[in-house]
Formats: sequence, structure tokens, C-alpha cells
Amino acid sequence: MYDVEKIRSDFPILSREVNGRPLTYLDNGASAQKPQVVIDAVTKAYAEEYSNVHRGLHFLSNLATEKYEAVRGTVAKFLNAGNEDHIVLNSGTTEGINLVAYGWAMPRFEAGDEIVLSVMEHHANIVPWHFLRERQGVVLKWVEPDADGSLDPQSVLDAIGPRTKLVAITHCSNVLGTVVDVKSICTGARAKGVPVLVDGSQGAVHLPVDVQDIGCDFYAITGHKLYGPSGSGAIYIRPERMAEMRPFIGGGDMIKEVSRDRVIYNDPPMKFEAGTPGIVQTIGLGVALDYMMDIGMAEISTHEAELRDYASRKFQGLNWLNIQGQAADKAAIFSLTLDGAAHAHDISTILDKKGVAVRAGHHCAGPLMDFLGVTATCRASFGLYNTTSDVDRLVDALELAHELFA
Amino acid sequence: MYDVEKIRSDFPILSREVNGRPLTYLDNGASAQKPQVVIDAVTKAYAEEYSNVHRGLHFLSNLATEKYEAVRGTVAKFLNAGNEDHIVLNSGTTEGINLVAYGWAMPRFEAGDEIVLSVMEHHANIVPWHFLRERQGVVLKWVEPDADGSLDPQSVLDAIGPRTKLVAITHCSNVLGTVVDVKSICTGARAKGVPVLVDGSQGAVHLPVDVQDIGCDFYAITGHKLYGPSGSGAIYIRPERMAEMRPFIGGGDMIKEVSRDRVIYNDPPMKFEAGTPGIVQTIGLGVALDYMMDIGMAEISTHEAELRDYASRKFQGLNWLNIQGQAADKAAIFSLTLDGAAHAHDISTILDKKGVAVRAGHHCAGPLMDFLGVTATCRASFGLYNTTSDVDRLVDALELAHELFA
Repeated sequence: MYDVEKIRSDFPILSREVNGRPLTYLDNGASAQKPQVVIDAVTKAYAEEYSNVHRGLHFLSNLATEKYEAVRGTVAKFLNAGNEDHIVLNSGTTEGINLVAYGWAMPRFEAGDEIVLSVMEHHANIVPWHFLRERQGVVLKWVEPDADGSLDPQSVLDAIGPRTKLVAITHCSNVLGTVVDVKSICTGARAKGVPVLVDGSQGAVHLPVDVQDIGCDFYAITGHKLYGPSGSGAIYIRPERMAEMRPFIGGGDMIKEVSRDRVIYNDPPMKFEAGTPGIVQTIGLGVALDYMMDIGMAEISTHEAELRDYASRKFQGLNWLNIQGQAADKAAIFSLTLDGAAHAHDISTILDKKGVAVRAGHHCAGPLMDFLGVTATCRASFGLYNTTSDVDRLVDALELAHELFA
Repeated sequence: MYDVEKIRSDFPILSREVNGRPLTYLDNGASAQKPQVVIDAVTKAYAEEYSNVHRGLHFLSNLATEKYEAVRGTVAKFLNAGNEDHIVLNSGTTEGINLVAYGWAMPRFEAGDEIVLSVMEHHANIVPWHFLRERQGVVLKWVEPDADGSLDPQSVLDAIGPRTKLVAITHCSNVLGTVVDVKSICTGARAKGVPVLVDGSQGAVHLPVDVQDIGCDFYAITGHKLYGPSGSGAIYIRPERMAEMRPFIGGGDMIKEVSRDRVIYNDPPMKFEAGTPGIVQTIGLGVALDYMMDIGMAEISTHEAELRDYASRKFQGLNWLNIQGQAADKAAIFSLTLDGAAHAHDISTILDKKGVAVRAGHHCAGPLMDFLGVTATCRASFGLYNTTSDVDRLVDALELAHELFA
């Protein structure tokens, strides 16, 4: 039994008001709120158990190291990685994908080599590949979704040619909510000898993830979207790929030995974690993932699917409302535009007056905006603590916006 | 009047015990503890005011953005930068120096070009330059300190040749405590047309810093050593250098426009800040810097100089104790070795039993360890909340270690 009211009571911010109204937080695609257990873990880490990690021998350092390193195992469990050494801890998906671009792709790709990606990608899974295009002549091959926003895995596989060195694909569109069949893509790409990077920044929030079952080479996640602290995250890397990678960020911890003339790098995954890490935010991430796993990823996914279906039914009655993306398999993420002249920013401002927090803009997805033929949308993105009442308040506020701009 | 007892009461962890003894925290060189105002700011940010920044228009997003962006001004004030746009917010000195290496040096330096650096550098200010050596044949030119651990600025300037493209130098050695006359180095290097990067990871903790007076091109700081949250930091970059830099990490926020065929990057400093930043830890960093500035950097520096002098006098009575580094101008950082067979790790373990937290090891300074002819030291590093009683407890514990290993 999914007790959403109990869950809501775990999140202190959800009981606050904004603009004199109860907060209806539907900006989870940008970042999620934090349960009290995460906030408490952060507070305790600073107030009682803080020290730098790895390099000390004293009590607090050992304590902090133990708590920090345990998170590697928690992430491995969350993603069902075969071994915690397949997990690199970092500050989020942006850093994770840049690690793959700089550490694995740049030294291996030559001019004319190709990367296949979808137009639904977030800028975090586009700009690092544009670096390779700008700097070394790598070619980006774009795959478009169908009219309903779904992505045919075969169209991705069809785009793979003899020069294709990587497929970089989202698990779940942050704009349309489309869930991509990354398993079929990985199976097909693997048969052609092409590694696949999955941007799991949204996918891991809404779906149970099993990287071994998916068969991907890289799977990047973002802590602050997973109800964890800002500046936390991780990336799963298949061990064969990790062995091929050169270091990215240089500094302490990622070395075994440094002299004037040479460096001996540490073994993976430490080789890819330089300097003092985000100690406390990583400890908080571990607590957040445990919190999600305690509720159950399948249960979260089912709850959000119910919200999605409820919202879809409500939206159907609003003939002045356009939903961008109607894929059969989609997360509870809705990009909305209104008929007429109303700009997404104006709509979101009216919603905000009603306490409804949504995001307006391009959602860091320029190529998708071009494909959809819009410059901006209003995005309502749901999380594990949202309710059908949140949907109702969203609809009421949208109706007000429609009246004002009609 | 420097009220150290009042200051101590601001730091909750300092009232705890370890191993049945009051905590004597002398591992500040690795990371500093956090005052309650910083912990409260972090808690409040998550429990009451959390949202992603920059891209939203709703109430919480505007609030978080305002608090986050204000920190740029706080850092500018702390370093006396001419303008807050000269500040790039990041996760700490390691990321800051890698930004300079990847964004400024790599596209500009050719095989045979030289970087001058001291053997006192921390690995964070060494490994990124080894990348340039390994990947593009850049030559590292090493300058040694004098026997007392002081560094003659002239020796750095003398190492500059016609192929020298950068001087990379610490403001304060994390092992010896040596304060480097970076202003003289910057003045001399500037006369030769050579930019200077200053690693301020320790310097900014112990000394008032004025980047305009120093005349450096880059000055990197680390939030968690400045009594702020883990995963926070910043780098000052002279605007002429910033204009020369290409982006490093690619993702959201650092772009103006992304299409399938091209990227238009954002204006500096945003061009160098990709993806969702470390929102809450950066807000906490601002509070930490305000806390330090409220006490006064000159006052902190004077207090720590008194601790240094007190400790130096006490150490003089211990003829079995060796202090690595006796520069006239040094911070309250002491690297200790004992005569005889005692290993630094064993000594630190005994100190820990007495509640005295120090660090044992190479302190991420391999070339300096080689220069000193040691493999490891015990390092006692003081902060703004330490007292002469902490020195006394350290000395008592060292005497016990001496007795046990004599």
C-alpha cells in the first residue's frame, strides 16, 4: 500500500506555502525535494562526524570514510551493478557524461567517427559530444522520435554505421517523459560492437534500473533529482570500458604515486575521482537511495503511472491545451503549451501565484525544441510525493491562465 | 579581542569526544569543521527554500537563485576581486585548476612549452600539469625551496625561460606551512609576460587575500577548508584570461543556444559552470566566508600566528622531534617526524587514542616528500578555533608516542 500522505510528511518543504497557497511542487524534473532523513544525515555528518576521507587514520576520518565509501555499494545496489567498483561517485550526470567524453571518447575517436544520439537528449548529453565535433571532427548523427514522442529502438540501430563509435541516449526524456527502450538499443548496438551510454538522470528517478539487464556500458545518475543533496551523483561504467579510460580530473586521491617526472594512477574507480570528494552530499545520496529503495522503485513507478493516467484524463477535457509527447510508455512529465499567444513564462508565472511550481523554458533541450517547433514549454513533472490533488490544482491554475490569456 | 572560546562554541563538533577524550582537531589542512550558521544555512536551504536555480520562474527557484548567485559577490569580496563576474563557482581547487589546465592551457600550449612550479605543490596543482606533459609534451620545470622550507621568489622568476607559458604556485604549503611571496612572483612574471596561477587552497584559509594586489591571473580556493560545505569552491580568473578560455565541462547553463549543428556558449563566468551547480553547498560557502570576514581575516591570521609561535616554542623543548619546514613566514601547519623507527602512521594512531586528530601520510605532495627525503609525516594543522590548550594536548600525546617508540 503506497501511503503518499505518510511519504509527504517526510518532506518538510511540502508543508510550506508560497504566495499564500500550499506549495504544489511539480518541478521535479529540474530537482527534487529532500526527505527529512536526508537532511538529518547531512546535518549529522557536519555537526558530529565530519572529516576529510581516505587519507586520515584518526577516528573521525575513519568514520567519514566508512560512511562515504558505503555509498558506492548503495549505488551499485540501486542500479544492480555487478560490483561496487563499477561505480564512480561524482557530482551528477553532467560530470559523469563529461568523464566519458574526456576520459574515454576523446583519446579514441577520430575525425569522421560518429556518435548516434536522439534529438530528445538533454544538453548534458549533447554539449560534451559537440566538443568532440568542434575539436576533433567527430560527426553527430541525430535520430528523431515519432510524432507521438516515442522513439523506435530500430531507428537508433539503423543510424549505426561502420564509423559509429558510441550511442548516447536518454532513458527518459526530461521534456516529453518518453521512456526509451534502452535495453533493445543496447542489445542491438552490442551486436554491432558499439558501446551505449545511457543518460539516466530522469530514468533512474522514475523507473527501476538494472544496468546488467539493460546491458549498457555507461549509466549516469544525478543525486539531486533522486531526492538527494545537490552536487551528488554517480556513473556506472562497464569494467571493460573503465579499463580503456584515461583519467579526466587530476589531483589527489586518483594517484598512487606522483614524482617530478611521472604519475602512477590509482586503480579504477578511484582513478576517476580526484581531490576531496563531495563527502557529505554523497553520504546524503546514499540515504536518499535507501529511502527510495525502502518505498520500492516498482511501487514509485506504479504510483507515478497512476498520476500520469489521472493527469492525462484531466488534460483531455481541456481542448485549448497541447501536450507535447504522448508516447504510450512515458513518465509523469508533461510539457504543455496553450493555444493562442500565451508564452510559457507567463503561464508559469500565473501558476506560481497559485502555489503551483512548474518550469518554463527550453528545458536544456534545444534540438528537441527545434523538432517540436516551439521555443519553450511549461513542464509539470511529478515525483514520488505528488498526488491527484496536485493534478487538480495544476488543472485549476491552467484554467485560470487560459481564461486570462484567452 | 579574539574570543576563541566564543568561536569554539559556534562549532558543534568541537564539543564531542573521540576515544573518550575531548576532540583536539588538528587536521584542518585536510578539511575544516563547520560553524552552526553554515549547518543551519544548509538545513534551511533543503527544508524550506530548495529548488533548482537559474532556469525557473517560480517562487522557490527565484529564491534559491538569488541566494546562490549572491555567493559570487561574497567570494569576490573575500578575495577582493574587481568584479563578481571574475569568479567561477565550482566544487573546489581541484576542479578550479583542472578548468585552467583544460580550458586555458591545453588548447594554447605546445610541445616544449614550459610550466614552472615548486616541489611544494599539492597534487591538485601537479597532476593536471602532468596531463599536459603526458598528452602534449609540455615540460615541467621544478623550483626547490631553501633548506628551511622558504621559497625565494627570485628562484621562481629565474626558472622562467622563453618557452615558459605559466607559473603554477601555492600561496601556502599544505605540508610545511611556508607562505610564498606570490605578489613578488606575479610582479616579476608579469614583467616577463607569463601568467601565474596561485593555488589558494591553504592560503585563503590563513591569510587575507587580495587578488588585485597579488596580481595573479588565477586564484583557486576550496570551500570545505574555509569552514564551508564539502563540494564547494571557486576560482578567481583575470578577465583577459577568462576571455582566452574555451569551455571545460559541457552541459546545461553554460550555453546560450544548442542545435544539432552548433553551440553558442554563454558569456563568462557562466560559460565555465555546467549543469546544475552545487546549489546548497555554495549557499553554505557564502555563509562560511561571511563568518570568516565577520571575525576578520587579519584577526584570524594573527590568532593563528600566535598559535604557531606558541607551538614552535613548545616543540623546541623536544629534541627527538623534527619539524619539516621552518620558514620565517609560515602558517600554523607543522609536519612532524620523530627520531627513530616510529612511522608517522603509528604516531598518529597513538595521538588519536588521546583524541588528537592529525594526518599522517604524504599529504598529496609526492615531490616534496622526495625532496625532504621522507615517505610520510605527521601533520598538525591549526584553524581559527584552535587554542594553546590544543597545542599542549598535542605535545602531551607526542611525548607519549616518543616514550612508546623510544
